Amino acid sequence: MRLASWNWGGRDCVGTISPDGREATPLGVRDASRGVLPLIQALAEGGSLPQPSGTRIPTELVTLRSPLPRPLRSLFCVGRNYHAHAAELAGTVFRTAMPESDPWPIVFGKLGECVIGPRDAVQLPSPSISAQIDYESELAVVIGRGGRDIPASRAMDHIFGYTVVNDVTARDVQMRHQQWDLGKSFDTFCPMGPWIVTADEMDGRKTRVRGWVNGALRQDGQTRDMIFDIPTLIETCSRGITLHPGDVIATGTPSGVGMGQNPPQWLKPGDVVRIEIDGVGVIENRFE
Amino acid sequence: MRLASWNWGGRDCVGTISPDGREATPLGVRDASRGVLPLIQALAEGGSLPQPSGTRIPTELVTLRSPLPRPLRSLFCVGRNYHAHAAELAGTVFRTAMPESDPWPIVFGKLGECVIGPRDAVQLPSPSISAQIDYESELAVVIGRGGRDIPASRAMDHIFGYTVVNDVTARDVQMRHQQWDLGKSFDTFCPMGPWIVTADEMDGRKTRVRGWVNGALRQDGQTRDMIFDIPTLIETCSRGITLHPGDVIATGTPSGVGMGQNPPQWLKPGDVVRIEIDGVGVIENRFE
Repeated sequence: MRLASWNWGGRDCVGTISPDGREATPLGVRDASRGVLPLIQALAEGGSLPQPSGTRIPTELVTLRSPLPRPLRSLFCVGRNYHAHAAELAGTVFRTAMPESDPWPIVFGKLGECVIGPRDAVQLPSPSISAQIDYESELAVVIGRGGRDIPASRAMDHIFGYTVVNDVTARDVQMRHQQWDLGKSFDTFCPMGPWIVTADEMDGRKTRVRGWVNGALRQDGQTRDMIFDIPTLIETCSRGITLHPGDVIATGTPSGVGMGQNPPQWLKPGDVVRIEIDGVGVIENRFE
Repeated sequence: MRLASWNWGGRDCVGTISPDGREATPLGVRDASRGVLPLIQALAEGGSLPQPSGTRIPTELVTLRSPLPRPLRSLFCVGRNYHAHAAELAGTVFRTAMPESDPWPIVFGKLGECVIGPRDAVQLPSPSISAQIDYESELAVVIGRGGRDIPASRAMDHIFGYTVVNDVTARDVQMRHQQWDLGKSFDTFCPMGPWIVTADEMDGRKTRVRGWVNGALRQDGQTRDMIFDIPTLIETCSRGITLHPGDVIATGTPSGVGMGQNPPQWLKPGDVVRIEIDGVGVIENRFE
């Protein structure tokens, strides 16, 4: 099942998307402002999906919002989690204090308020704030049933579904504060979507993540090449910390980010970044 | 003015505390679950404080909650922001890649869901999760009027008030993930209170921050010894990121944390950490 949030005729809706992606069916949801989040919460508590309410609409006629327009809280984001990406970073300013392989995952936070829709524009800051804006194509795991100290062996049972995020990053800001949260959390820096595909329909451990800039393929990774796999990431984030239904874990990006180009290629006004994850879908965002 | 949240007779209330701290006066608030947050939001939009509703109660009879039991989102937390604390860290595992003075503040996130009240118990994790639990006495700034790219010269106008937090930390977890968010965000790891003192009543730039463990004074700092002062921190956190009414910036801790003792002293079951900030008040939390 694909669960989405969209705006149609000035009204926010939550509903399902047909398997071919062409039709959107609204569900009977009272408050659509938080997108799919209330459904995830209700389902985690044993509730059932609301009934369809209203007629099907061609998806091309609606404006897709992020399935989680305002997530519960900061996203758990994983750094340097693909072998080839770790190798490319070893040749950048990140080389200091950064072994090619870490014994534990790197996890930082990205404020949920920077989430935008799958086709919304990302606002570039003025060059005096940051001149090194980069993209990161990532598979995001959406937690269903919550829990604390979840062992990796049972972690897959806690996944509600998957979506796509672009973990947009101001590299200069990320570096200079040592901790990465600020440089990852600029307003509009988290395109997300196009919908959530539920975990019964795909296995996030074996899928392809690709990213293009202005039509040129830059990133082409396989999630099976992650250094820390999805069950390990859920175990890690839930150690001592209760995960809640609707929490998002962005699982890291494959090689091919702008910083890894030679010379580095930063995003500029008019650039379009497209990310596709097999089994989930496409997000495509213009930088302005 | 001191704004607080408390429970009395099984009911959550929001109200004011008398200048001597002895009397609590409830205000007419419909939903007290979010504590003072809705009042901060309403005041930031030009609204006024609700009228008193109900009789005064001796503060000693109520159970104080955190003034922000569930903050808007992750706290912005500042690392290594007092000169003497930076010096003590230079002798610990943090010495690598950590100059005594940084050109930019270190800012990380602490999940808002770990906030507890000013006298609530902190739950120590099992030793297999972390065996190095530490305290950090901190002045927290609560944002009133929001904004983005706030210059330091106008930053003080954006402060609603001040409160006290204990930025409880699992040092081993903080270190091993390189990014600090996880080791700072364990459930119950953010005692906060006892109330918010509004900015017209004190200047957070010149006050004393003290912390005791089991009655022994461990931390005794002056906020004027901050490496990056409060206006600079607000400017930093708001660069490219819209701050909202109710956002919290924890401004860093003075020297004297457990990790800085020789040998390091980690918190154990039964320990009580008391933090007092002049002009604000006291929080005191037992570790269990």
